[in-house]
Amino acid sequence: MPAPLQTMADAIRVLSMDAVEQANSGHPGMPMGMADVATVLWTKFLKYDASKPDWADRDRFVLSAGHGSMLLYSLLHLSGVKAVSLDQLKNFRQIGSLTPGHPEVFHTPGVETTTGPLGQGIATSVGMAIAERHLATRFGSELVDHRTWVLAGDGCLMEGVSHEAISLAGRLKLSKLTVLWDDNDITIDGHVAISDATDQLARFKAAGWAVKRIDGHDYGQIRKALAWATKQDRPTLIACKTVIGKGSPTFQGTHDVHGKALGKAEVALTRENLGWPHEQWILPEEVTKAWKSAGRRGARTRKDWEAKLVSSGKKADFDRAIAGELPAHAFDALDAFIADAEAKAPAAATRQHSGAVLERIFGSIPEMIGGSADLTGSNNTFVKNTPILDAPDYAGRYVNYGVREHGMAAAMNGMALHGGVIPYGGTFLVFTDYSRPAIRLAALMGVRVIHVGTHDSIGLGEDGPTHQPVEHLAALRCMPNLNVYRPADAVETAECWKLALGTARTPSVMALSRQKTAAVRTTTAGENLSAKGAYQLAAAGHPAQVTIFASGTEVPVALKARETLEAQGIGARVVSVPCFELFEQQPADYQAQVIGETEVRVAVEAGVRMGWDRFIGSDGVFVGMNSFGASGPYEKLYEQFGITAEAVADAAKRKLA
Amino acid sequence: MPAPLQTMADAIRVLSMDAVEQANSGHPGMPMGMADVATVLWTKFLKYDASKPDWADRDRFVLSAGHGSMLLYSLLHLSGVKAVSLDQLKNFRQIGSLTPGHPEVFHTPGVETTTGPLGQGIATSVGMAIAERHLATRFGSELVDHRTWVLAGDGCLMEGVSHEAISLAGRLKLSKLTVLWDDNDITIDGHVAISDATDQLARFKAAGWAVKRIDGHDYGQIRKALAWATKQDRPTLIACKTVIGKGSPTFQGTHDVHGKALGKAEVALTRENLGWPHEQWILPEEVTKAWKSAGRRGARTRKDWEAKLVSSGKKADFDRAIAGELPAHAFDALDAFIADAEAKAPAAATRQHSGAVLERIFGSIPEMIGGSADLTGSNNTFVKNTPILDAPDYAGRYVNYGVREHGMAAAMNGMALHGGVIPYGGTFLVFTDYSRPAIRLAALMGVRVIHVGTHDSIGLGEDGPTHQPVEHLAALRCMPNLNVYRPADAVETAECWKLALGTARTPSVMALSRQKTAAVRTTTAGENLSAKGAYQLAAAGHPAQVTIFASGTEVPVALKARETLEAQGIGARVVSVPCFELFEQQPADYQAQVIGETEVRVAVEAGVRMGWDRFIGSDGVFVGMNSFGASGPYEKLYEQFGITAEAVADAAKRKLA
Repeated sequence: MPAPLQTMADAIRVLSMDAVEQANSGHPGMPMGMADVATVLWTKFLKYDASKPDWADRDRFVLSAGHGSMLLYSLLHLSGVKAVSLDQLKNFRQIGSLTPGHPEVFHTPGVETTTGPLGQGIATSVGMAIAERHLATRFGSELVDHRTWVLAGDGCLMEGVSHEAISLAGRLKLSKLTVLWDDNDITIDGHVAISDATDQLARFKAAGWAVKRIDGHDYGQIRKALAWATKQDRPTLIACKTVIGKGSPTFQGTHDVHGKALGKAEVALTRENLGWPHEQWILPEEVTKAWKSAGRRGARTRKDWEAKLVSSGKKADFDRAIAGELPAHAFDALDAFIADAEAKAPAAATRQHSGAVLERIFGSIPEMIGGSADLTGSNNTFVKNTPILDAPDYAGRYVNYGVREHGMAAAMNGMALHGGVIPYGGTFLVFTDYSRPAIRLAALMGVRVIHVGTHDSIGLGEDGPTHQPVEHLAALRCMPNLNVYRPADAVETAECWKLALGTARTPSVMALSRQKTAAVRTTTAGENLSAKGAYQLAAAGHPAQVTIFASGTEVPVALKARETLEAQGIGARVVSVPCFELFEQQPADYQAQVIGETEVRVAVEAGVRMGWDRFIGSDGVFVGMNSFGASGPYEKLYEQFGITAEAVADAAKRKLA
Repeated sequence: MPAPLQTMADAIRVLSMDAVEQANSGHPGMPMGMADVATVLWTKFLKYDASKPDWADRDRFVLSAGHGSMLLYSLLHLSGVKAVSLDQLKNFRQIGSLTPGHPEVFHTPGVETTTGPLGQGIATSVGMAIAERHLATRFGSELVDHRTWVLAGDGCLMEGVSHEAISLAGRLKLSKLTVLWDDNDITIDGHVAISDATDQLARFKAAGWAVKRIDGHDYGQIRKALAWATKQDRPTLIACKTVIGKGSPTFQGTHDVHGKALGKAEVALTRENLGWPHEQWILPEEVTKAWKSAGRRGARTRKDWEAKLVSSGKKADFDRAIAGELPAHAFDALDAFIADAEAKAPAAATRQHSGAVLERIFGSIPEMIGGSADLTGSNNTFVKNTPILDAPDYAGRYVNYGVREHGMAAAMNGMALHGGVIPYGGTFLVFTDYSRPAIRLAALMGVRVIHVGTHDSIGLGEDGPTHQPVEHLAALRCMPNLNVYRPADAVETAECWKLALGTARTPSVMALSRQKTAAVRTTTAGENLSAKGAYQLAAAGHPAQVTIFASGTEVPVALKARETLEAQGIGARVVSVPCFELFEQQPADYQAQVIGETEVRVAVEAGVRMGWDRFIGSDGVFVGMNSFGASGPYEKLYEQFGITAEAVADAAKRKLA
């Protein structure tokens, strides 16, 4: 006789509390509280095949309340994802295990996204659901037809990003997205009521969701609610009233069970209370059998799907898109654009060059999906005649993200994680502050999302210091596994876009100017020089005494300063630095050669100094910002803050003297 | 005969469009759309006295939709705030004017907070309303009794932080807070409907607000609604249906009028349409008179209030609190604590030291209001027996902010701006990413808010890379006007708290460890050494060949490495660096002396290198992180990532060799 649902759920409870106990660290409360809901979902509804957790048409399960990671590890182990063995559970939260404190995608098979920072999971899932709907239009619903299920806690729903996520999902009528809210009335500091009195059902309804409330320990209600969710024409919220830590006689229903081990005595009491006679790590066969059988439910469907994929004639294209490989001729038009830019040396804002680049690649890379957080015209992210991605058919390739920088960034993460699409999205560079938690997750996970950050300095002008990035280049450059590009002109902008699109496991930020700037590159020598991160743009005429390093709109400033110095008989070379991170990846001798050995080294960038010492040394000269900006016409701001060719030349001469 | 409301409102419309025209930059749409609502508010309801815009008991008016700055400048000018002269309006968006692109507090009299980044104003206003309610309990409602009015646009309501703000305000029943929503159906990219379908009234209601919808151009409805708002027992939302750019015959009601000058022809057409025959910058006398009279409405009340303040016997205390001066004996108990810590050298986590510090100062600085974003026990921010600040009486001094890092940070800004309170709030250091836009505004405005960021490195342990800051110290240090403290032990923690509290125009971040760490300071020599930013903690025994720089929990690592080196006959000194920013403010000779001239310079910090080149040079040795962290027990992580005394000593020796 197969084990009843209750026993299957209790297996999750016991595994979770035992793993936390063994690590003496972790969060037993949520897994024990949501074990019943998760058991019904995973055994009756979730479309997956445990033998192939990366099957492209699987349902996505997102544990937004990532601290409850043992719920997910238990589910993966029990349903038969091989890598997540019992030994891995025993090594919960240990270095190198597949069971880290919070779930990490690309680390543990079956984990769909890295979660832990609250609200990120629910916001990421919106992107997954968008990607699914879009790909269904591209490849047909016989190949793409799956749901996204999110388990979210009170913390997720209190975070601001949840608002951006649910209002975007509601607007887009993402009916294949369901949030299972672990409505347990408890947060770390105590009862939810001490800090929140939101009527969540009314709130989600206001955002365009269908909502339902159930007893999260009543299997019948859970089953009915999940079935109901699959039939709605909009995203669905199921408020699952649960008892946190259910099963622990002493601590259940209290915040004491949220985030620490129960202790030996309570573990024993809980076993007794659950009627679970088995020792630690011992699971009765009827339980393991029932779970394995559930984990095999989708195998037939998966195999049928594979056959369908073959017979569809779309397999090559589908596989390529899902693998994230670019089409063969992705950059043909762009290479022509580069050649043209070399010849014509167009002066324009780099955001305009970026728009021109997009015109050349958007058609040849069907995976690209653009968007902007309500600054489309300013960000130059929209390619003419692109249909908007919107309900009901989702075939469009541009998302009106609204004034939701953070929600956009998280959705982009979800789209990239889902696979089959390559998202880029624009806002002002200064507002990467809003999306920073999602950008960090992108870097940590290693996903290809491209953030277009225009208006990248005081060159923004009159909008003033609230809108002028000053510290943002430094703040982004210090983040591991994030490539920050600040191209100087059309050629570099094109090169940087190629690099960003070619970097499948690293997110990118493109810092682009609002203001017009001169062309600096009139030859590529057939090489993507931006790929080196930094390169000598202009050699010294006279014997080199000065090196000037610069990025973006300050490269022409550096070139002009060089002219001034050379005219006075002082040899000066100029190094363009479009990407710090790629420079760090070059061989040491190349780095040494680019940095050079001139007596004086100067860097010029309309941002703070931090990071530039790598190029100029701590005794080098920096011409840039050391305060916030100001409101005024941009040419005057450059003068007021002393970021001019004269200032660079003068500083170099003072240092030489 | 006094000018009718319509004429007074049209004066705002004309001034706004003319100023934008003159600057050829700016946002005429919102001021023209909300002129009617603003006119009724400022002439009939707002409690203020234009001759004394900083009167402590004034109503606060927050322009959350900061791009509509000309609305506010028009109101200030018209109602008689002297500094905001007609000449200033003519210099809209020019360097040095009092009329920058977005409103800047402490720059323009009558501006309550710097706005522009959407959502910040509404979230800041929640803190103002909290401060008002709290101070009313402290000083009595005869001295503190004013409202906070917020003008917010669609963008503000789409931003995630608005969710955190309104749910916190609703929970706290801040009935003296009113949001006037400019419900004009337009965002930059087009109609709101292209990106949002939220039922905002239902949404606010779900968060515990009273709501009402009106025609924002109907003076009777506006008047009734504002009166209604003053009588509710909860915060209030008034959805004002308006026509953006109202008055411009060609562009009103479209996104074309949002963010650019109308153009000469349309300005003329608008004058005609409004029946406004006056030349640019000419205001008819009946309009200026009516407005000036409105601006004087509060003068009597203000003077009566001043008399009440004198007769209350609370004037000295009230003035001191509002001025933000600390009480005379604020640090007596803390100084005793420091002496005790020197003597006993307690080993503990710096977050625990911070908790102990708070116990010594919270009682003697009644302005301090603490809180945490649902991590009270982890942040050690709660002082025993402190009552919670909550409805209905608000006398408490600890806020349960809930899982709302961003909302907390913005509310803290509002509390500090309101004056009379000094807010501090805790979360994990890694989650300063969530609150970064509000931290930046605090730095830009120059307000004393103290962010307690615990779990400040991989020393957090098992929770893993999503929760381990790596780049955060660098990302915070690069921000202008923000002091980032990372104290090493009890003495430094106490010193840093004194500094943070003593810095009225600079916000602070206290980076504190989760894990236990040894005491390093056993003497102060009667001086706050942390005030220097960096100081020599241990001299070399042998002739100095090596200098080791470190902060926080890595200072003991540096000391141990020093011992190792000294034991091998290599002279090594150790410099503790609790605050980069304060070090930069020291005289050059002190800086040179601290950095020293040893052959080898090493820095050790469990974060990224960026910023440390200032101390060690670009050829110095850095021992720290260059990737994200991992999940595991913290001692093992320090070993795995090579942040150990052995690694430091070895690196120094390799460099010497």
